Amino acid sequence: MPHGYNGKILRVDLSSGKLTTEEFSESFYRRYYGGEGFVGYFLLKEVPKGVDPLGPQNKLIFAAGPLTGVPVGGCGRHSVGAKSPLTGGYGEADSGGYWAAELKMAGFDAIVIEGKATKPVYLFIKDGEASLKDAGHLWGMKTLECQNAICEELGDTRIKVAQIGPAGEKLVRFASVMNDLDAAAGRTGMGAVMGSKNLKAIACRGTQALSLADPAGVQEIARWIRDNAPVSVKRMRDFGTAQIVDSLNGLGGLPTRNFQLGSIGDADKITGETMAETILAKRRACYACPVQCKREVKVDGPYTVDPQYGGPEYETLAALGSNCGITDLKAISKGNEIANAYGVDTISCGMAIAFAMECFENGLLTEQDTGGLALRFGNAAAMVQMVEQIVRREGLGDILAEGVARAAKKIGKGAERYALHIKGQELPMHEPRLKQGMGVGYAISPTGADHCHNIHDTAYVSMTGSMEDIQALGVLEPMPADDLSAAKVQLVAHYANWIHFLNCAVCCFFVMSLGRVGFERTARLVRAVTGWNTTVFEILKVGERATNMARVFNLSQGFTARDDSMPLRFFTPHASGPLKVALDPEAFQKAREMYYETMRWPNGVPSPGKLGELGIQWAVEDK
Amino acid sequence: MPHGYNGKILRVDLSSGKLTTEEFSESFYRRYYGGEGFVGYFLLKEVPKGVDPLGPQNKLIFAAGPLTGVPVGGCGRHSVGAKSPLTGGYGEADSGGYWAAELKMAGFDAIVIEGKATKPVYLFIKDGEASLKDAGHLWGMKTLECQNAICEELGDTRIKVAQIGPAGEKLVRFASVMNDLDAAAGRTGMGAVMGSKNLKAIACRGTQALSLADPAGVQEIARWIRDNAPVSVKRMRDFGTAQIVDSLNGLGGLPTRNFQLGSIGDADKITGETMAETILAKRRACYACPVQCKREVKVDGPYTVDPQYGGPEYETLAALGSNCGITDLKAISKGNEIANAYGVDTISCGMAIAFAMECFENGLLTEQDTGGLALRFGNAAAMVQMVEQIVRREGLGDILAEGVARAAKKIGKGAERYALHIKGQELPMHEPRLKQGMGVGYAISPTGADHCHNIHDTAYVSMTGSMEDIQALGVLEPMPADDLSAAKVQLVAHYANWIHFLNCAVCCFFVMSLGRVGFERTARLVRAVTGWNTTVFEILKVGERATNMARVFNLSQGFTARDDSMPLRFFTPHASGPLKVALDPEAFQKAREMYYETMRWPNGVPSPGKLGELGIQWAVEDK
Repeated sequence: MPHGYNGKILRVDLSSGKLTTEEFSESFYRRYYGGEGFVGYFLLKEVPKGVDPLGPQNKLIFAAGPLTGVPVGGCGRHSVGAKSPLTGGYGEADSGGYWAAELKMAGFDAIVIEGKATKPVYLFIKDGEASLKDAGHLWGMKTLECQNAICEELGDTRIKVAQIGPAGEKLVRFASVMNDLDAAAGRTGMGAVMGSKNLKAIACRGTQALSLADPAGVQEIARWIRDNAPVSVKRMRDFGTAQIVDSLNGLGGLPTRNFQLGSIGDADKITGETMAETILAKRRACYACPVQCKREVKVDGPYTVDPQYGGPEYETLAALGSNCGITDLKAISKGNEIANAYGVDTISCGMAIAFAMECFENGLLTEQDTGGLALRFGNAAAMVQMVEQIVRREGLGDILAEGVARAAKKIGKGAERYALHIKGQELPMHEPRLKQGMGVGYAISPTGADHCHNIHDTAYVSMTGSMEDIQALGVLEPMPADDLSAAKVQLVAHYANWIHFLNCAVCCFFVMSLGRVGFERTARLVRAVTGWNTTVFEILKVGERATNMARVFNLSQGFTARDDSMPLRFFTPHASGPLKVALDPEAFQKAREMYYETMRWPNGVPSPGKLGELGIQWAVEDK
Repeated sequence: MPHGYNGKILRVDLSSGKLTTEEFSESFYRRYYGGEGFVGYFLLKEVPKGVDPLGPQNKLIFAAGPLTGVPVGGCGRHSVGAKSPLTGGYGEADSGGYWAAELKMAGFDAIVIEGKATKPVYLFIKDGEASLKDAGHLWGMKTLECQNAICEELGDTRIKVAQIGPAGEKLVRFASVMNDLDAAAGRTGMGAVMGSKNLKAIACRGTQALSLADPAGVQEIARWIRDNAPVSVKRMRDFGTAQIVDSLNGLGGLPTRNFQLGSIGDADKITGETMAETILAKRRACYACPVQCKREVKVDGPYTVDPQYGGPEYETLAALGSNCGITDLKAISKGNEIANAYGVDTISCGMAIAFAMECFENGLLTEQDTGGLALRFGNAAAMVQMVEQIVRREGLGDILAEGVARAAKKIGKGAERYALHIKGQELPMHEPRLKQGMGVGYAISPTGADHCHNIHDTAYVSMTGSMEDIQALGVLEPMPADDLSAAKVQLVAHYANWIHFLNCAVCCFFVMSLGRVGFERTARLVRAVTGWNTTVFEILKVGERATNMARVFNLSQGFTARDDSMPLRFFTPHASGPLKVALDPEAFQKAREMYYETMRWPNGVPSPGKLGELGIQWAVEDK
């Protein structure tokens, strides 16, 4: 059994209440790694075509990786995966905080949950032992109440809780799985799957130290991360992920009014700098992380925001803020608090509200639909109310809780044109007209529009000021953000493999890339943790394998290359503002084809040879 | 300018006698690296379609790399390249010894030679200065005499000489460029190109230490190599490359009687062990290398072999030995001495003789053709005489000096069936029926059948007992030698990129792979030498770029996928002996296709996207 792992995967059959522990070979671990790789493995093995994402046949996987729980910055993450109720395909989201490290120290690498409990339950894992407990009294609770109740009844305040809020219980299709109150496995609706299984929470407590192949080597890298944070990471600590609001606004890359524009007049009101000067109460970190990019905000009026729920990150500031035409930092913070308390993804939630606002402004929705609410861009109070309605599935919120793709169908009247999603998932807050490589990545990502399954290289280079990792991929000069040349697209594809690897490992993009830990030092960390004599080549193969598995899963569920699309809006430039370019349809199509060629996915389908190389022929043969 | 390089490339126009120094950007060095990469670059840029390999328009490139001359085992190598007179395509061979380190310390990274001198000349390079000198008096000399004459007339015994012997002067199509008397850039006929230019030798003397980014890091790896030699490398020291004769013979993988068989009765007479017990006078090393795999043998009768010419390596023992049905170690040593003294490739030379022997035994050649020689398998004296005839282009030797492909055409009567070559180059001493992955590599290698441009993974694993590098490519379990599955072929292709990288760096396969320096430590060495923050991913890309350039060059000269062939003999098993299998035509064809798919070479042609990724679109656009 490799170091860094426990060698145990917990299987929970909620229908029968049976708990079993499964053990796998070292090859299994080295091949599928953890996180996204485990999610792909179990979905492909166990979730056949046509399974209802919200039915008992769906599986819900919580997966850590070899680096999770290792006392190094960026190594406190886990993935949550299932067939997505939002996309109908590969669903998976990653989260930071402290829960994953606790799971590892409690003796498990992953949890596979199947079936459906007859009544609400929660899972408690402590030092190798797991049990299901009644959650009837917890059902309906917000996340803070629920966490407190669990810690109290189990008599241990050091217990870490991953859980759904009322939104997950009510099957909001973009419900999140929250942990540690402010960390969200937000995307692809994993909270709804958890809700559909009547599973309220997973509480973990562990005291077992992980075995490391080379503890001194691990410590050396931990120290390096602590002592060598580049400017970009220092800004992350000072201003959070919101550090980029100002520069994006200047470039026309700050999503505004449902991506109609790329900048907003009062952007300075929602920058990380402004937050630090006004409502910031504290900086927070994930497990073992010196960066402290997370926020804790305190607002006492006109909204009351409980600092225990953290504070808005960049995605939230843009999704509930500029993209709804709003620069009221307190209102956004309130929206963020509600989202964390009820458990929804702030990105999809904000996008759903922006969509509704555009429908309203164009007469597709009226005050009759909104219950009298003037659901216009810039109406901060209306935004906060809509967040409440969505998480409670009340009024128009009940429709928006289905995600923009389904909501647009329900609304009709051509509302689809305002529904900005790929494969059913709403776009995150990165402007594909500006970051065009990332746009191609959005189209191709197995989870639909998702910034956690691809990331734009140029953004990385410009934020870190370093070409090191790009050069280590064999690309020696920087490439512009709007370049969709063959070389650029292939860089994007290779770089996406790196992101997929990080989701397998499971560790943090901010620390590993923006913090310039970089490919090589990350590989060294894997070596020090596991003892495997690995290389950057192999870790990129791990990421490539994971993304191939996710793609094969989508194909098995009926997806085709046609689903690798981009909303039409992004082929037209902003009506005004600093960014003059849009995606070019022909260049975009060519770039997509080049991405396929790079991956050896003719017509979007992984070639048998590629699957053979990656050792996953079984993924198509089993079907 | 990166560390490890001089930043200077010498251009020698032999027609005008003009010498110039060219300087390139850091990107040029990081992209094309050295060795094979430089050869590909200059051939593609400067040698258009249809150029006569033996005419003045051909270019001859001597190229070191970033590691050449670094005081670490395995780092004393260089490449010699040109359009090949044997294949008509990409020609390139690598050599060890001391010459390349001397070139680097003399201030140059490479030499590009063009035109043709009106009379014999040699080039002298000393500490940044280069001059052409008359070689009229050296023309016709054997390599030892010539080296002594140059050292004497320049008054410095520390001068290192790369040179042609009389075989190169006489344009034997598989003439080698010898250096340090026992090291040969043997394959693809580079010595004939040098001869065609009236260039007898390049003498180097340098005293400038190379600049290293991290001298302590370099030293640490040098020490590791010295102190951590695995068993396979210890055997290399004790028994030379001939350490494998015995085990190959047992497996049926020792080429015997022109590859009709895979083992020979008296194999124990030509093993490395026997050599060590009988004629071995001394072990020799290349520059800075603790391994000492090279031999020095002394024979006083019935043949006299001068130890200054070294001793036979494995390839020579098999080519002039078992493959000619011969196990007379002294005769083989004599053949080796003649080959080194006159400058021919012992592999092609031995294969040409074995071909002639099979023709003779089947009546296609008679004693009339051979001047009364009973040119039968097992006739050691006839073998020695044929080596003499070939290097002097006398009698039947004049025909065989053209290589087996041309010789078979001249002989007619269906002699082609005994002419075992790919793209015109004779097979080296690795049995493709046994090492089937290597067989596919032979077919695809840009230089034709060549063990220095691909190597069989399984051989590597079985010789080192280590899966480390294979696992670092993402392949976790060993694969049998006769496996041609999709996964295996892709491993072979990726591993070939590693070999091509070694030819760019330029460093030694034995030390870096058999010596288990391995991917990761080699990348670390590159980092310590150059200061580039490189990774295994990037160094494999460097190898991939080089093999793509070589392939594009071949395509530009008229090659097609049809040239990626395998002689029919290898699809039939040996008539007797331990090895029962042969290549299967269908499996071989499929494997070739899978290799193309892996490389993104549809129909054998690198896709525009692949060239774009590697930054070498210019290679097709310039044409």
